[in-house]
Amino acid sequence: MKTNPVKGTRDFYPQDMAVRNWIIDGWKEVSLRNGFEEYDGPIFEYLKMFEIKSGEEIVEQLFSFEDRGGRKLAIRPEITPTLARIVNQRINSLAKPIKWFSVPRLCRAERPQKGRLREFFQWNIDIIGVQDERADAEVIFTTVDYLRRIGLTSNDIKIKLSSRKLLSLVLKKLGVAEEDLELLYNLLDKKAKLSPENFNQLLEEKVADARVAAKIKAFMETQNISAIKNVIEPDDEIDEANNELAMVVHYLNEMGIGDYCQFDPSIVRGLAYYTGVVFEVHDTSEQLRAIGGGGRFDNLLRDFGGPSIPATGMGMGDCVLEILLREKGLLQKQLPHRELDYFVADAYVGTFNDEKGAALSTLEDEVIKIVAKLRTLGLRADFGYKSAGLSKQLKEASARNAKNCIIIGEEFKDRQLIVKDMSTGEQELINYDEFFAKLESIQSR
Amino acid sequence: MKTNPVKGTRDFYPQDMAVRNWIIDGWKEVSLRNGFEEYDGPIFEYLKMFEIKSGEEIVEQLFSFEDRGGRKLAIRPEITPTLARIVNQRINSLAKPIKWFSVPRLCRAERPQKGRLREFFQWNIDIIGVQDERADAEVIFTTVDYLRRIGLTSNDIKIKLSSRKLLSLVLKKLGVAEEDLELLYNLLDKKAKLSPENFNQLLEEKVADARVAAKIKAFMETQNISAIKNVIEPDDEIDEANNELAMVVHYLNEMGIGDYCQFDPSIVRGLAYYTGVVFEVHDTSEQLRAIGGGGRFDNLLRDFGGPSIPATGMGMGDCVLEILLREKGLLQKQLPHRELDYFVADAYVGTFNDEKGAALSTLEDEVIKIVAKLRTLGLRADFGYKSAGLSKQLKEASARNAKNCIIIGEEFKDRQLIVKDMSTGEQELINYDEFFAKLESIQSR
Repeated sequence: MKTNPVKGTRDFYPQDMAVRNWIIDGWKEVSLRNGFEEYDGPIFEYLKMFEIKSGEEIVEQLFSFEDRGGRKLAIRPEITPTLARIVNQRINSLAKPIKWFSVPRLCRAERPQKGRLREFFQWNIDIIGVQDERADAEVIFTTVDYLRRIGLTSNDIKIKLSSRKLLSLVLKKLGVAEEDLELLYNLLDKKAKLSPENFNQLLEEKVADARVAAKIKAFMETQNISAIKNVIEPDDEIDEANNELAMVVHYLNEMGIGDYCQFDPSIVRGLAYYTGVVFEVHDTSEQLRAIGGGGRFDNLLRDFGGPSIPATGMGMGDCVLEILLREKGLLQKQLPHRELDYFVADAYVGTFNDEKGAALSTLEDEVIKIVAKLRTLGLRADFGYKSAGLSKQLKEASARNAKNCIIIGEEFKDRQLIVKDMSTGEQELINYDEFFAKLESIQSR
Repeated sequence: MKTNPVKGTRDFYPQDMAVRNWIIDGWKEVSLRNGFEEYDGPIFEYLKMFEIKSGEEIVEQLFSFEDRGGRKLAIRPEITPTLARIVNQRINSLAKPIKWFSVPRLCRAERPQKGRLREFFQWNIDIIGVQDERADAEVIFTTVDYLRRIGLTSNDIKIKLSSRKLLSLVLKKLGVAEEDLELLYNLLDKKAKLSPENFNQLLEEKVADARVAAKIKAFMETQNISAIKNVIEPDDEIDEANNELAMVVHYLNEMGIGDYCQFDPSIVRGLAYYTGVVFEVHDTSEQLRAIGGGGRFDNLLRDFGGPSIPATGMGMGDCVLEILLREKGLLQKQLPHRELDYFVADAYVGTFNDEKGAALSTLEDEVIKIVAKLRTLGLRADFGYKSAGLSKQLKEASARNAKNCIIIGEEFKDRQLIVKDMSTGEQELINYDEFFAKLESIQSR
């Protein structure tokens, strides 16, 4: 019987795994150099955990199930609820700020489409325990630090940022009721995906007063922070929210990534838990979905039964990122290709006296013995299983990107190895014991 | 509201994640140096895939569910069925032998107990496409190469090996019917966990003829391969199975790990798909469950709708391994502890002229600017969020295992940094631009 993978999931053959590893290793390296420590949680949690604060869209897309004990569980569609849970469990003993990252495997039962699969990996970074614009700036800097490291410039991507706090203050000042905010956010969040006509129509349906709708529209089109006052008379609260955003931008400039960032009031973020600065990473051609996004979520821990502690973070999936990297030609040339340090080949038929000069040992024995010694020294080494002529074996060595080839030929009768540099083609004849003594001293450094 | 993790799953706080990463990174490194390439599959597959060839015990322990489209799915309890599926999909284009490894996250709905959780990680290595005792030896060598690398000696662990082929031939020669083999394997597999009396009783229940039961018992207690002939008159087939096993042992000796390995006919392996050499890794004190195990499974690809192609492999979970490493005291001292290259501290209150000598820049700005520069150069750098005196900041630097501390003091008025080596306590005064020029030349090497 033959089976297929489930629609929307991926098989990772070695060439696909190399891409996934390269992306994830980069996420990890950049997280660590930015002072984040790694955490993770289980792949499934109690279903109710994801019903607390996730966006409506996410709850609809859960893979949920019951175990034999009748527990209602779900595969995690995001890791933020898990983060809130495990931070709350040890809130008193954890040193603040908590600067953590994770690279969880997540599953969502959505309709698979370009850049959206039912199973994916997502980089998450979070700073918990400081109400400080430097924390928001650090999260954005870390995001850009990674994107810049893999070759994406400010011509390729933009960080669009705004403030949920500012947006809610503006909307409330314009007369929108507190209880209508959530629904309005959902619409404003979709602005970029809708035609202007469509957006206007939906906005007018939601906001009865045409004058208010026009003001909202004007605010959503503001180009920079200082222009907000042209749309709405600022009060103290709006001023404060404005200053917060301005300070984040100030730090981003200090950190040298100002050219990647721009104010964009149409950034709202779908998830229900954001409370302050919010941002999204977009490709400048605007052809793809958001590459990542995040912001401040000061109430999340409290909503999960913990204390009221400020937090700010970012999430970035692997699917859209990989599409962009392929389009920009940045993937193939950056993947590590070296597979082997040594390929061991044989070019002799017969048996040898072993090192004690006594019993006969076969060529197969000698090959596998050398391979084992190399590996034990920490070197990547392999051999060919098929009996084949030397030229075929050298071809296999090349195909596997071996740096060197060790050839056991007739010279092995005198315990001599041929070591061939596969890039220059140069060959060296070297005594067996001398060769391994040399390697050993290099490897133990 | 407060929630807990599901019983049998683990939260990985940074100190737990460090252990998991260290174990998994070791698995990956050793796999690569032994010439294996990494692959992976989805976390869930069609339920029926796991019903084909997994052991009965595993099928009972599936977390299964239905998606909205009515598909019956299950979280993977092992990765071998996925391996068979994805190899079969590209069987003609993949170069043989296929030497692949994976480190899947797996879930089984078992009762949690010591060394057995409902979610765990498992190292898998497989060689597909060669019927060669060197392949079985390579799989065992790679297993030992890892265990030896993390400090386990032949006094700590043993590879116990036998042959399913030999066992089935012996049992059939003793008169056991082909259709009774599977049930008998299940009993023999549990021998080590049962008292001798209990085992004998169950064996006599399963095997009516007391003389046959006694012979089986005698075979199960054979100490070495050459002693098998004392229990049963070998025929050509038994001789061949014996020779296969002896060749594997020969190669293990050639590869220098003979002292880790011993013949043990009571090794049967629970899973239904083994066909040849089988082995398990045990701690020598016999206090724990098997650390890992594997063997030859020549029919698996065929059972998944592919061609008949030989294969041999190994699986090792993280739970029992971690218990053993803790017991042996091998964990804590081998974990990497260095967290930061640089911690940036401030020891001055006031503002500075910026590099252009014009506008004023705050200390906070300078700290975050230096941190950003260090990170961009690939160095692990951080700072403290709380305003605190220098001694408190140095304490934080120590707590985070920073190698160096950069102190911005009054000297910064002349663009001078203090760089303190945290292990020796030595301090150096160095010009800002000179410091970064030096770092840049080191990092770009």
